[in-house]
Formats: sequence, C-alpha cells, structure tokens
Amino acid sequence: MNKNKYTLNYQPIEWRDHKVRFLDQTLLPHEETYIETADYMEIATAIKELKVRGAPLIGVAGAYGMALGARQIYARSRAEMLRKLHDIASILKITRPTARNLFWAIERMEKVAKAGKSIEGIIIDLENEAVTIHREEAEATYRLSEYGAGLLPNSATILTHCNTGPLAATGLGTALGVIIYAHRQGKSIKVYADETRPLLQGARLTTWELQKAGIPVTLITDSMAGHFLHQGNIDYVIVGADRIALNGDTANKIGTYSLAVLAKENNVPFYVAAPSSTFDANIKSGEEIIVEIRNAHEVTEIGGVSIVPYGITAVSPAFDVTPAKYITAFITEKGIIKPPFGDLTA
Amino acid sequence: MNKNKYTLNYQPIEWRDHKVRFLDQTLLPHEETYIETADYMEIATAIKELKVRGAPLIGVAGAYGMALGARQIYARSRAEMLRKLHDIASILKITRPTARNLFWAIERMEKVAKAGKSIEGIIIDLENEAVTIHREEAEATYRLSEYGAGLLPNSATILTHCNTGPLAATGLGTALGVIIYAHRQGKSIKVYADETRPLLQGARLTTWELQKAGIPVTLITDSMAGHFLHQGNIDYVIVGADRIALNGDTANKIGTYSLAVLAKENNVPFYVAAPSSTFDANIKSGEEIIVEIRNAHEVTEIGGVSIVPYGITAVSPAFDVTPAKYITAFITEKGIIKPPFGDLTA
Repeated sequence: MNKNKYTLNYQPIEWRDHKVRFLDQTLLPHEETYIETADYMEIATAIKELKVRGAPLIGVAGAYGMALGARQIYARSRAEMLRKLHDIASILKITRPTARNLFWAIERMEKVAKAGKSIEGIIIDLENEAVTIHREEAEATYRLSEYGAGLLPNSATILTHCNTGPLAATGLGTALGVIIYAHRQGKSIKVYADETRPLLQGARLTTWELQKAGIPVTLITDSMAGHFLHQGNIDYVIVGADRIALNGDTANKIGTYSLAVLAKENNVPFYVAAPSSTFDANIKSGEEIIVEIRNAHEVTEIGGVSIVPYGITAVSPAFDVTPAKYITAFITEKGIIKPPFGDLTA
Repeated sequence: MNKNKYTLNYQPIEWRDHKVRFLDQTLLPHEETYIETADYMEIATAIKELKVRGAPLIGVAGAYGMALGARQIYARSRAEMLRKLHDIASILKITRPTARNLFWAIERMEKVAKAGKSIEGIIIDLENEAVTIHREEAEATYRLSEYGAGLLPNSATILTHCNTGPLAATGLGTALGVIIYAHRQGKSIKVYADETRPLLQGARLTTWELQKAGIPVTLITDSMAGHFLHQGNIDYVIVGADRIALNGDTANKIGTYSLAVLAKENNVPFYVAAPSSTFDANIKSGEEIIVEIRNAHEVTEIGGVSIVPYGITAVSPAFDVTPAKYITAFITEKGIIKPPFGDLTA
C-alpha cells in the first residue's frame, strides 16, 4: 500500500500556527465541527468531555496541550516556567485516568522541558516535541496496521469494538487501521461493528470511518456479538487498548473482556492492536490499572433523554481489563508480540 | 409468602366484559397507558409491535385474541366457524415466530374449539379457556418463583436480562418472579439489570417493576455484565426463556448466550426460569428454533433518532440460542429440572 494514497478528508487533530484544531467527536456522525484553540484548558476539557478521545489521540492532544500551555505561562525564570508547566501537566493528566498514552506523552513533554535551557527555548522545544509525538504516533499506526494486515487472509469478517480508526489514533488507527490497511491491500474485508454503549462510539464513529474508507460494515448491538461469534459469522476479533500491563492484561473500552471470553469460547482469534505508547512498563498486571468510572447519566440517558423511571441508579465503568490469557497476540509497530513485555517505549 | 399480599398496582393484561385491556409496554416507563379492545386484530398488532411482550404474556394474549376473534366471526355453520377460527389462529401465530407459548396457547384454544358442539358454545368455551390459560399461567409463575427462591441464600446479588416480571408473564413473572418472591421472603436481594439493547426492556421495564417491588436495582449496559461477573459482584444469573428444546437448548432475548458463557467462565450459576408452556416437545435441539429477525431500525435508531451515518445497515436478531451445557438448571412450576425433558405440557 502506498500510504500517500490514503488521504483522509478529516483530521482528528492538527497543529496550525501555534494553535490546535480538533474535530469535536461528540457531534459525529451528524455534524462535523472543528474547534480551534490556543488554550490548554480547552484541550483538557475536550479530553474530559470526549470531544477528543481514543487512547493514542489523547496522548497527542495532551502533548499539544503542554505546548499550548507553555505559551500561556507568565514566568520570570526557567525554574518558575518548569513549576508552572508541571501544574499544567497535572491538569492535563487528571482529565482521564486509564489511557497510558496520555501519561506517556505528558511525561515525555516534561522531560523535554527540563532539558530546555531558556523559557523561549522550552516553548519552541515543546512545540517541536508535540509535533514529533504526533508524527511518530501516526507513523506507528501505519506500521502496526501493516503488521496486523499481514495476519489476515484474502477474505475475512472482523468484529471490532468501540472506535479505533484515524479518529482515535491519528494516522490510520489501531484495530481499524489494520482493517483499513488490509482493505487497501485488496483483501475482501467485512466488518461487524459493536455499537459500544454507553457512548456509542462504534455506531457513531466506527461506521462513519468505515463508510468513508469504503469498507462494508454491519452495525450490531454489543449484546449480539456473542450470537454472531457462536454462529460462525466472525473470523477475527480485533480491538484497540487503553493500557497494557507487562503481563499482557489489557484495559480497553467496557465490553472488551466479554468479547475476549466469547472469542476464546468459539475459537476465534482475538487481537489487540496498539502502539508502544499504550504499553505501561510500570505495572505488572491488570490489577494495577485504574478503571475510570464515568457519570451514571451516560447509562440512564441516551442523547439526553432518560430511558429509566425517575430515581433509578446506574454505574458506568468506562473500561474493563481483559486477562492476557484471552488475547491471541498484540499488534504493535514493532511487530506481532506476546507477553511478558519489556519497556517498549525505552 | 402469602401470595394474596402481593397485589400489583398494574396489570399487563385483563379480560373485562368480553374485552381485553392491556398495558402498552412500548410507552413505559414514562407513560402508563392501557388499551381496551374487542378486536383480535388489535391484539395481533399489539403482539407484533411489542405493546404486549414476554413469552408467557403473548401466550395469554394469543388466547384472548382467539376468544375475541370467535365473537367477531360471522358463520352459518359450526364447520365455517372452525375454518374462520383457524384463519384467525394463523394471523395471531404469524405475529412473532420464536416464543413457544404463543403457539402452545393457540393450539390449546383450537383444540377446545374443535370440541365445541355449537357456534355459541364454541364462543363461550373459548372465552372460558382463555381465562383459564391466563389463571393457570399466573399460578405457574407463583409456583416456579417459590421453587427458584428456594435456590437462593439469605443474601444474593442477581444479574438478569431483558424483562421477565409480571409485565412479561402475568402473575409474579419468571426470572423476576424468583427475585420478587425471594425478596418478599425477607431475603436480601440486589439486582443488576442489563439495559437489553436494542429495545431496552431491562432499562425501561425491569427497573420499573423492581422499583415498584421495592428491590434495589442497578442498571448496567449489556457490555458491562461480563466485567461485573469477572469482578465477583454477581452471585447468580437468572433469565427467562422464549422457547426451550427437549435437550435444554434455550432461545431467549439476544444477549442471553453471552451472559451464559460469561457466567460459566466465572463459575456463576446460570438459571433459566420458565413455565411449562415455554418448553417445546416438538423440537430436539436449539438448531430447530426459528430466531426472529426484526427491523434494523431498532439498532440504528434509539427513540426514533438515528445514531449512525446515513446509509449504514444493521441486523437485529431478537433472540439467541444458549446451548444447554451453559445452563445450571431450569426453574419451572413443576420444580427445578434438567434436560433431557419429556413433554411438560402433556
């Protein structure tokens, strides 16, 4: 595949003249609205509110947030600059707790800042580093997509969960990147997309991206995936990841664990596609992963309309942790790998 | 439990002065609207459109539809009466293909009609038979609920799927009947209710019924069930059924198969609660069960609002079939049983 041939007519995030321009993903698929900002707080809010989402993308957004923040700081000394930058890093980090990429990117930005010699130098270095992170993450998706596509035969039906395309990861995406790459290689790829309640990223975003890529997709509810796996309609399950422990335990969008168990029960290979930045060398197993609990209204309401009687409560864990034993292999920009892992980002 | 103590302040269906009065379940939980009709076609439409739903309830509704239809027929002879009644039976039967109870009830009504000696006698016999079916089905739910409650310890957290309460089955309900019975015995019962996409019977109906019964309930999306089973939050899974084959393979609301696999994987008992009328002695295994495929709009729209880009297609199987090997036991009005079954309705 000539990667230059794959030109998206949408960009989840761009750095333009010291500003960040991002697509508000909460308005998709019915509205394609871009927001431009020079304020790191607007990036933090966008991450928190899922206007910008997808583990690799929020890493990139976090990096850009640091670059914007550096310009917003009033500092009389390099030391003051670094202190204030650290506060900005903290604000960007508390937006969402689970995706490793956000922390990885911000830590990388802080390291660059500390190596900077002057206030002006730090500002320029951070801007360059954020753009580099973005470019590297995009390139990683092309490489991992190529590796992943190599696993697929000439014809395959793939089930995927949540959204893992260019919207989620820049470049070609992760799990959806594999699918798009294989399709553009000329393979006959069909996709079942889980709607992915509560926030319907599968229904709203994955179908939108697959439609733009010209790949046949059938939407199903999350509850139907087991049925179609059992019926033999699905050859592969490929999903993304938000954080991967050294032993291969993987946090990803709620519902992933169920798919992994159902895939194994029906002898269907289950792959996780993610760049190195999703792998966390600081944690040994999934037990150490913090799962974000979001507002119960995400479950009790759909599109702002209540689906329950007054007074009913709900819980909304955003992720679950899939034990490594259910995962066939990991598709990364460094190849197809299996745990135990070392530090992939070293 | 004194069953007289449990007086519902809602009735899913009632026979009143040669008419049927039923609760329109599509409008719940926000609107409690009853429809009264003397027209069997309105019953057929109500079943088709899920205003009346739940396998045992549509059996009862089908019986009442036959009783109404008998009064609507103009016949000059007993033979003509039976021919026209058979046409009405066919119309009522084609409304929904999966629930055994509908076919069981209508076959029972046709048998009574054939035994009738005069047109007027047939009309009266069918009315009495429909009322008897309703009473017997309600009584069956109390008995099966008592058997089921006997399986539960003094304190338990139960996951259930779709809606299986009084709304679905008259009387006390099936899976939810077991829960309500145990609660009224003084056991400390907590419930996780799956929302049950696409039509949200869990979110709309099960939470509504549990709230009325005073039982604590937490709503989750279907995709969260595996996570909570894996976390050890759930002690039992209890669901209803639409059709059960001689070998124990069970058709129930889409998503049931997934729950059964996930329960087994996490060593959580998985029970199916259903009256005899759900058991089909005509089929050996689940392979013979016809799964209703409903309109794709049920998946691509929520509350009439599209959640996908224009042009995206979906599939909507209303049920799946859970192989018997995943089912711990069956809770019926004849006791706790395991396959292979004989003809329970003989």
